[in-house]
Formats: sequence, structure tokens, C-alpha cells
Amino acid sequence: MSNRAKKIVILGSTGSVGCNTLRVVESLEGQFEVVGLAAGKYIELLIKQIIKFQPEIVSVATEELARQLNQELKASGPAKLPEITCGQQGLVDVATYPDVDMVISATVGSVGFVPTYRALEIGRRVALANKETLVMAGELMIKAAAASGAELLPVDSEHNAIHQCLRGERREEVRRLILTASGGPFRNLPLDQLRNVTPKQALKHPVWNMGAKITIDSATLMNKGLEVIEAGWLFGFGPDQIDIVIHPRSTIHSMVEMVDGSIIAQMGVPDMRHAIQYAMTYPQRFFCDVPRLDLAKLRALEFFSPDTTRFPCIRLAYEAMRAGGTLPAAMSAANEVAVEAFINRRISFPTIPQIIEEVMLAHKIGEVTDISTVLEVDAWARARCNEIINQLATAPAHP
Amino acid sequence: MSNRAKKIVILGSTGSVGCNTLRVVESLEGQFEVVGLAAGKYIELLIKQIIKFQPEIVSVATEELARQLNQELKASGPAKLPEITCGQQGLVDVATYPDVDMVISATVGSVGFVPTYRALEIGRRVALANKETLVMAGELMIKAAAASGAELLPVDSEHNAIHQCLRGERREEVRRLILTASGGPFRNLPLDQLRNVTPKQALKHPVWNMGAKITIDSATLMNKGLEVIEAGWLFGFGPDQIDIVIHPRSTIHSMVEMVDGSIIAQMGVPDMRHAIQYAMTYPQRFFCDVPRLDLAKLRALEFFSPDTTRFPCIRLAYEAMRAGGTLPAAMSAANEVAVEAFINRRISFPTIPQIIEEVMLAHKIGEVTDISTVLEVDAWARARCNEIINQLATAPAHP
Repeated sequence: MSNRAKKIVILGSTGSVGCNTLRVVESLEGQFEVVGLAAGKYIELLIKQIIKFQPEIVSVATEELARQLNQELKASGPAKLPEITCGQQGLVDVATYPDVDMVISATVGSVGFVPTYRALEIGRRVALANKETLVMAGELMIKAAAASGAELLPVDSEHNAIHQCLRGERREEVRRLILTASGGPFRNLPLDQLRNVTPKQALKHPVWNMGAKITIDSATLMNKGLEVIEAGWLFGFGPDQIDIVIHPRSTIHSMVEMVDGSIIAQMGVPDMRHAIQYAMTYPQRFFCDVPRLDLAKLRALEFFSPDTTRFPCIRLAYEAMRAGGTLPAAMSAANEVAVEAFINRRISFPTIPQIIEEVMLAHKIGEVTDISTVLEVDAWARARCNEIINQLATAPAHP
Repeated sequence: MSNRAKKIVILGSTGSVGCNTLRVVESLEGQFEVVGLAAGKYIELLIKQIIKFQPEIVSVATEELARQLNQELKASGPAKLPEITCGQQGLVDVATYPDVDMVISATVGSVGFVPTYRALEIGRRVALANKETLVMAGELMIKAAAASGAELLPVDSEHNAIHQCLRGERREEVRRLILTASGGPFRNLPLDQLRNVTPKQALKHPVWNMGAKITIDSATLMNKGLEVIEAGWLFGFGPDQIDIVIHPRSTIHSMVEMVDGSIIAQMGVPDMRHAIQYAMTYPQRFFCDVPRLDLAKLRALEFFSPDTTRFPCIRLAYEAMRAGGTLPAAMSAANEVAVEAFINRRISFPTIPQIIEEVMLAHKIGEVTDISTVLEVDAWARARCNEIINQLATAPAHP
């Protein structure tokens, strides 16, 4: 790495990936300089981050929050106030801030889509933790990156693992990618009890400590389905070359099988700083301040085939990937709405995939030609999904 | 790979690696042409190989065997008889045969040392299955390869795995190599029963089907010790950067830990054609005609720390590596003699490391300056080891 510190901006700085990115910045003293932070609503945490890292620009979800942030920073903030911006435009402002070396795209859900696209358009290196971005419009993202020469590096532990496994390998000699999945908290729950699952139970992930939406996605295994689509775009493979294996301990983060039958796997402790740091420092590797994996202290590593009866979201994601076009975007949007409805106790756990499938069946697949098409599909799917949920809420209960 | 078939010679063609190399040649039709075969005493198998592959030169252990081979080939052999040669010179003749692209060095023990060295000297690419070669004189081998530009590719599944894990990685970013070991058949045998172990029991390897000497080495774990020294030379790491982990199922063939804590592992079914083919076709990978690893059907993968009380050979190998010079050569020679004495029921299983250590303690370590030094040490250690064994045989039994 050159002597000059690399300038980075973080979209989603108060989320789990954002906070861990800042820990990596701290531990790799002098390597990175944080010039921009975009958060949503967690003003208190954002203020602490601003005081510590003194960025030049920050963004929050709304104008009201921007005003509040401005006042609080004036009262207790750093000597030099950052530029404060907000909303979707605020995210784009941070993502495309001048003279930046790298954008950490770590917002959750579709909100990160446009800013990430804009960053890739102007050639920014992007460390991508926001998988919805690629699910919604992988084609646009990959084209934009190719046109500008932007590098796209995955932060998701699975894709990061595959990126590591593919170092020095030739694409045409890869037989398949194998994404590992913890299987979530309900891997062994009797099927008939799945309908009684509460949001609280679903929010307890067996291995990783993450945000609410992605944790529910991990319980339905939609997270893995989204990852299959994400892997397809990132590495250029079709659905028949991407498999899922349940690996409850998540020690192996993912694997690649080569044409000769050799499997290359990447392992580590389940700490996302590994993948974040890798994406930030690639192609170099630096000492990483996380506990080392002690093989002799590991419990046995096990592998199982995924159960698509229990977890229909896997099947839905493969179907969306095979159909292509705007269907993955519609599926992802419906999933966001359905997950939120589950968290708000409006629908049951097994209803999540049912609603998503209904939206998918109703969707007229189009081509992903530009951003506005994708945003229209996103809006349509959300509206349709909400309609279905409202109908369910007002429908008489089954006898 | 170019259109022209690559010309190969095989040292040790009737051994397990040799036979599997020929299976790879058959399955990769048109990629390789076998122009030389060197065997020891298994004339019948060699004749079948000659008839099938029609090499230009063959070698056997002794003049008598050469005469016998000549007669039998005249009676039932191919239309065009190969050149027949024998002994150490025969091995060198095959190893340095003109216009050859690659030498598969797969003899067992020190007999392969000089021919492999000669092949490297003249710039031949060598696929090395003979670990004793590097243990005896790694420095000479690596220097010869560097001087001639010869490529040295490991066929041992562990080193082959590490070679795969290191693709695309930077040496200075490697924290350590982790060699996996099955632990052999006596991993869980009560310590006091180790002295009653018979050669027949020791020759039953839990995972790999190999020759007698290497199978006993796997039971004493000297095999793993030799591999540590071999890995040191092949990849340029010291003893503090090479660890052993017991992994009874041998599904992970070996691993590399990077400075950031990431572990890259190579997995596959325990079939040596994988590693042989990889070494033969590197940097390309081809379809390999072996069963694929079915992760969901694997039993759980476990890892344990090696027990150097039970298996002193590991400690001895690390000591030899740390001391360097001619000590590894002396240790390896003593081991060959001790293992043979055990197979012939002249000494007990726990006596193998005791005798090796006695020889090591008696050895005056010198520098590995040239081949003759190494061969002298080899001869000295064998003689010394035989003396000790003979004394044991004539000594009165303990009361």
C-alpha cells in the first residue's frame, strides 16, 4: 500500500458492517482516512463517529435528522463541522465525494442501490456489503464497473471467501461455487412449528451478529438465495454453477470446486472484520486484529443439503435468477416488505415466502435497461406486497 | 496445453504413484506420451506397462532383471523393443532421457535422489512424489532447479494442496503452512499397547492406499515429519511456520494461514490421481476422472493437536530441520533402515524412533555441499542404524 492513507467513505456507517469498517480503520492505523459517513437514523452513534474520525461530509436519512445533527454537532462536535446532507441525494453525495479511493457500500436493502451505482459509474472502487444492489440490477452494476474500470470487491463473508478461493484460478477451470449457509435458527425445528416462530426467535442468529433484516433473511434462507444471485453477478456464473451447502458452524465461509474435482475453501472465525479488511486492502493482506481460528479447538465441521421444502426462499431465488430480467428486483423488494411485516408481527414466518412468490407470479418480467426501470419495479413490488399483506390482515381467519 | 503431447518419464512406474500416473495419462488421452519407465523388481507389471505405453527406454533394479526383462519382452513384447538399462545409472538414464518435458519422480526412499537431482540439473520439470529427495538434500535440489530454471511440483497430497492454496498469494503474506495428518492407525491405541503393534497392523492405513515404507511412516508419523522438512524446501518456510494438525478423515489435504488470519484449504477425495494430474497439467486444470467429493455425505470433519509423546518422530523431524545441514539426511536414512527392520519383525514399533534418535545423536552434522557428502551421510547412517539393530538383536532381553 502506498504511503498516503487511502480516502474512504462509508454508506451505512452506523450498521454492523459500517461499525466494523471503522474498527478496521482504527486497527490499520495510518492506512485509511475516513472522509465521508452516511447513516440513517442513529444520530447518537453517528456523532461519536464524526468526533472520532472527523469526516468532511456526512449524510442522514431526513432533513429533520440533518437539522438535529447540525445542532448537536455545534454543541458538542469537532472544531470543524462536516458538510451535512440528507436523504437519497445525501447518500449519492457521500458515495461520489471527490478524491475518494474507496466506497464501503454497507446500507441495508434497496436504499444503497443508486449511490452504489453512481460510485461505480465514476470509477470508484467499491467494497460491497449491500447484496440487494446486485440482486436488483447486477447487470447495470457490472456494466457500469466495466465501463469506468471500477473494482467491485465483496464484503459478504461468503463472496469474500470465494474471491479469496479464486485468486490465481482461471474462471473457465471452475466447476461451481459452493456457498455455505449456517442454516439459521430453525434448521431443525419441526416443520409444523415454523408458523409459530416469533420475530424474537428469528432475530437470534446462531453464528453471526448482524442487523434485523439480514438476520430474518438468514432464518428464511432468503439471504442465501440473494447471495446466489449476487455471486452470479460478481463472478460471472449461472445458477447451475452455484450451489448451497448447509454448514452450521460457518467455519468454512465458502468454497470453489475446480474442474479437476479439487475444492478450495476459505476458513476463519466468524468476524466480519476479516472480509471487510480483505476488501479494503486487496490485493494486499495485513495483520487483522481478530482472534485466530484454533483448528484443534473447533467442534466437528458438518455439511448438509439445504431443505427447500422448509426454506422455499432458496427455490424462489433460483427461479428469479433463471428467469432473470426484473424478477430478482421484484423478489428482493417483496422480501424487504414481507420481512418488515413479519418483524411487525403482521404476518407469520411461513407467510414470508408465500407472499414473495405471489408477488413474483404477478410480476411481468422486463429487461433491466436502466435505473428508473429497476426503481419502478421496486416500487411496484413493494406496493403489491403491501396490498397482499393488507388483504391478509383484513381477511377472515381460516376456520 | 499445446497440441503436441507432453513427453514424460516415470521413475518408480510400478509403485502406487507410478501406476496412478499411468491412469492419469490414459484418462487425459493425447495430452501425454510416456517415453520412459523405471521400475524396481516388479517385472510382470512393468511388461504390461511397456506393452501398453510403448516407451523408448526402461530401467530395472539389476542387470539380472534387465536380462530377464529383455527375454520376456522378446517373447511377448511390443514390435519395437525399448532400450533396457538398469541400476542407479538406469534411473539416471531414464531421468535425463532427451527431449522429455517432465519427470515423474515416484521411487520410494533414497534411490530416487541422484536421478531427480540430475533431472533438475538439466532443467527438467519434475513432479516430485519422492519426499526423501528433498529431506536428504533440499538445498542442492532447490539450487539446481533455480540454476537451470527447472520447475519442481509436489505430488504428495499435502504439498500439492499447499501449492494450490498458495496460487495467487504472496509469500510474505503467509503466516504458516498447516499440514494435515490422518494420525495413522494408532492414533487412539493405548500407549502401553504400542509396543505390541505388528507390521500387519501398521500396514493398514486408515485412508490412503500406499506402499509399505510410506504406510509405516504414516503410522509412526515420521511421514508427516518428513513432509514438514519437504514443505520447508518446496515453499521456503522455516520450522516455526509449518504446523501439523491431525485430521483423521483427510478430507482437507492441507491449509495455509495468511497474515490476516484467513485460512485457505484444499479438499478432495483421497485419490492421489488428483495431485498427480495437478502436478502434470499445472498451471492448467483438466477434468479428473475420480469421484467427486460429496460434502453432504461427508462425516464430520475433526481436528486434533498431534501427540508428540505418542509419536516422537514428529519431534525428531523438527529437530533435524532446525539443526539443518546433513542431519535430515541421516535421520531419513536411519528411518528407512529402522522401518525395514520393523517390517521384518526385528524391532518393535516404539523402537523405530528410539533407534533413529540414537543415530541422530551420533551424527556429526556437516554442510550439504554436494551429492557425495549426502550419499556418504546416507551410507554412514544406514550402517550405524544396522549396527544398533544388530546389537539389540544379540543383547540379552531385559529381565
